[in-house]
Amino acid sequence: MVAKLLDGKKLAMEIRTHLKQRVQELKQKGVTPKLVVILVGNDSASRIYVRNKHRAAQKIGIETKDIELPQEITENELLAYVKKYNEDDSVHGILVQLPLPAQINAEKITHAIAPAKDVDGFHPVNIGHLFMNDPHALPCTPHGIMQFFKKYNISLMGKHAVIVGRSNIVGRPMAAMMLNNDATVTITHSKTKNLSELTRQADILIAAIGQAEFIKKTDVKPGAVVIDVGMNRNDKGKLVGDVDQKEVAEVASYLTPVPGGVGPMTIAMLMEQTVKFAERGVQNVDGEVSNG
Amino acid sequence: MVAKLLDGKKLAMEIRTHLKQRVQELKQKGVTPKLVVILVGNDSASRIYVRNKHRAAQKIGIETKDIELPQEITENELLAYVKKYNEDDSVHGILVQLPLPAQINAEKITHAIAPAKDVDGFHPVNIGHLFMNDPHALPCTPHGIMQFFKKYNISLMGKHAVIVGRSNIVGRPMAAMMLNNDATVTITHSKTKNLSELTRQADILIAAIGQAEFIKKTDVKPGAVVIDVGMNRNDKGKLVGDVDQKEVAEVASYLTPVPGGVGPMTIAMLMEQTVKFAERGVQNVDGEVSNG
Repeated sequence: MVAKLLDGKKLAMEIRTHLKQRVQELKQKGVTPKLVVILVGNDSASRIYVRNKHRAAQKIGIETKDIELPQEITENELLAYVKKYNEDDSVHGILVQLPLPAQINAEKITHAIAPAKDVDGFHPVNIGHLFMNDPHALPCTPHGIMQFFKKYNISLMGKHAVIVGRSNIVGRPMAAMMLNNDATVTITHSKTKNLSELTRQADILIAAIGQAEFIKKTDVKPGAVVIDVGMNRNDKGKLVGDVDQKEVAEVASYLTPVPGGVGPMTIAMLMEQTVKFAERGVQNVDGEVSNG
Repeated sequence: MVAKLLDGKKLAMEIRTHLKQRVQELKQKGVTPKLVVILVGNDSASRIYVRNKHRAAQKIGIETKDIELPQEITENELLAYVKKYNEDDSVHGILVQLPLPAQINAEKITHAIAPAKDVDGFHPVNIGHLFMNDPHALPCTPHGIMQFFKKYNISLMGKHAVIVGRSNIVGRPMAAMMLNNDATVTITHSKTKNLSELTRQADILIAAIGQAEFIKKTDVKPGAVVIDVGMNRNDKGKLVGDVDQKEVAEVASYLTPVPGGVGPMTIAMLMEQTVKFAERGVQNVDGEVSNG
């Protein structure tokens, strides 16, 4: 078997094209989706991320406002910015780029974002709704992964999904989304014993570990769908995933490449959520109810 | 092997004794823990539950206020009661007994309870914190189950916990608690294929299915810890669990009986959470920080 690659670049482009239309329709109703991105300090990686988000938004027609704040800002000053945009009805999504400087409690900031504008889907009330199978806003990386299953008609019902990694931004919300879609779900992590015994049972294997090429061919059941969330540099400085792509491609039925797999989907989902929030506003004005 | 029984009656009594002391200490600081229980209509089972909660509270020294409201009450009228007790500083816990009459959206009511007074632990923001491994309030049934592992020194780290059932009040929060305590967690449900193959891998098996004596000896790995959350009537009208107790006792190392296992722990945990909320109030006055 040689795995079919799940092309995240192509799928993200299709999603963007569709989003462009949705933004057009919103604009005809007098609404321009608007995303506020708050960047504190001069972290160069953060700067690149923010620029990428800005560009993606522009292409689709989403208005962005980048707020650049000094490294020395206090927690209360930063909270005041969040509050300001929480209350600004023209703003549909708010995102505070992480990491934040040491004097600021990052959780306090992200939890201060109004849940209805929480485009990252990290607010506890949104995580709670997701785990109660009543999602209002979704963390972008696992939400992006779900799009592959839709696009490639990969059924989840009754399938055994094994997730390696239990982070708050990937592993845990991924588990909720798989469970909400009727998969049987196993969550494994650094304390798991006999990991390979479990991964070999997976119909769908999701690797979100943060270790270069950790998942080998012998960890994968022949015919499994393998999702590689990793973005690591190997010894030679090359960008590689959490999956040994060359080996695993020989046994998996589907595999997301790195780069060009999960990565491009994350920003696409951020845009999708911003548009969705803007649409909700319009629907609410029309008197309709929407829970996403 | 003949399983050791995990005695919920005895453990609940120990917990109550300890709670009594904590309540005494609170009273010495001038605080009496107070639980408001709202009962709508005349459902006889609900009436019994409310009476049991009332009695358990009295024994410990928790003050309860039972609010009985007519079957025909409107949603807004009921919300006004919730709001009143949310704002009453002498009240530490609020509980609305379910089910509610058809004209009332139960979710809207339970989500209106202030998260800091949510003794049932069902508010989305509390569920979110739990799933982000930063628990503020815990659903009582899975929280009660956790007490058995503590009491009987059953280590969870690296153990494979298999949960049968994915309800919002047992299966899902149970999964979060096990994961937060370093178990590897599998969540199975009605759509799971080859269920027995999965349950036989469990070091710790939690049955929360709602089907009489569903789990048989052949579903259990010898030496497993088996937790039976079920409360069903069998053909003969006898109260039985989700586990075939007689058969499974032959292979499990530990087993919770039905009745007298998980059941008594649920009310004990409701009391514990009420006391904890009251203690938080005192700590906050003292200027300490507590996240439970």
